[in-house]
Amino acid sequence: MKVYQKEFGISSTKRTEVIDITGRVEKIVEKSGVKDGICQIFLTHATAGLILQEAESGLIRDIEKMIQKQFPKGAGYEHDRIDDNADSHLASGFIGQSRIIPIKDGEMMRGTWQSILVLELDGPRNHRRVFITIIGE
Amino acid sequence: MKVYQKEFGISSTKRTEVIDITGRVEKIVEKSGVKDGICQIFLTHATAGLILQEAESGLIRDIEKMIQKQFPKGAGYEHDRIDDNADSHLASGFIGQSRIIPIKDGEMMRGTWQSILVLELDGPRNHRRVFITIIGE
Amino acid sequence: MKVYQKEFGISSTKRTEVIDITGRVEKIVEKSGVKDGICQIFLTHATAGLILQEAESGLIRDIEKMIQKQFPKGAGYEHDRIDDNADSHLASGFIGQSRIIPIKDGEMMRGTWQSILVLELDGPRNHRRVFITIIGE
Repeated sequence: MKVYQKEFGISSTKRTEVIDITGRVEKIVEKSGVKDGICQIFLTHATAGLILQEAESGLIRDIEKMIQKQFPKGAGYEHDRIDDNADSHLASGFIGQSRIIPIKDGEMMRGTWQSILVLELDGPRNHRRVFITIIGE
Repeated sequence: MKVYQKEFGISSTKRTEVIDITGRVEKIVEKSGVKDGICQIFLTHATAGLILQEAESGLIRDIEKMIQKQFPKGAGYEHDRIDDNADSHLASGFIGQSRIIPIKDGEMMRGTWQSILVLELDGPRNHRRVFITIIGE
Repeated sequence: MKVYQKEFGISSTKRTEVIDITGRVEKIVEKSGVKDGICQIFLTHATAGLILQEAESGLIRDIEKMIQKQFPKGAGYEHDRIDDNADSHLASGFIGQSRIIPIKDGEMMRGTWQSILVLELDGPRNHRRVFITIIGE
């Protein structure tokens, strides 16, 4: 049993944006040498989210629109008096900033349509930290 | 410390359906021999969800209705041009396809009303994979 | 590698309330002696939630209002015939009752604005159980 940790940064170009990081996480899992265990993907941010979903271009636009529908910008939030991004915080908190994927035989046990998608909710940003923790044997 | 992994399949009979898998997960935890640790329940799917909730029949219908209210079918989604199930993907991504329950003294530390419920969001389906990873000692 | 578990209770004074438990979790992580790994915060309840968010007073009121908007009380739920708290169950199930934070060099790798917030959804209550599981080395 061991713990293997690694981080990388990503940047965004729009306020709301979906960014596929599946390939980068897969490389870290491979490098860890862990055969069976779990892989946590964690964002150290309160205005970004993480989900596992199909990276189809139409669906990605649907995700962006659903975020804006469920967490509309500027809807009279008190936090907007300070920072004008209460909607980003609310979406980030409710959807969550982390997902965990099992590892078996050295590979993530994700389904065909479960890509690892970062939800930028308050971009554009130059450096969003993605922190990976792999535990297993 | 060890990793113990097991999977099983479930089927559904309706488009939106709540399926209680608590008993099946409990048997796997018992068989694992792990006394203290965590148990991850993970679906390898992008059109299903997983939650911990009370398995009361009225509440189960409330859950099904709330899914349809928050993620309505056919609301002009772009992904529907391809597959007509964007609502299922959106609910699955936002609610999540996994939960983790602590294990103590050989038993899941879930509350009385925290049953393990699979949310079928795009059924009926013959084989939904439930993948269990237990880590502990 | 080891597993370290601890629990504590919290109480609430309102029906919907946000309670910051960051300091208490930090002390447990420190006491665990784990340098690298993960820390799971888990509520053994089906009418409470857990999120990582900024503990700013305006945003806390925004969170409370967003819960009530997305999961309105008394909206004709079937479960309300039994217990009058279907809205609390629905919010708890969809938002989730647990989050996991990575630990590195003996400290939680949470971002500056990621406080650990319990969402009381059916208070006031005298004893809500918070169960901590730390796995690492």
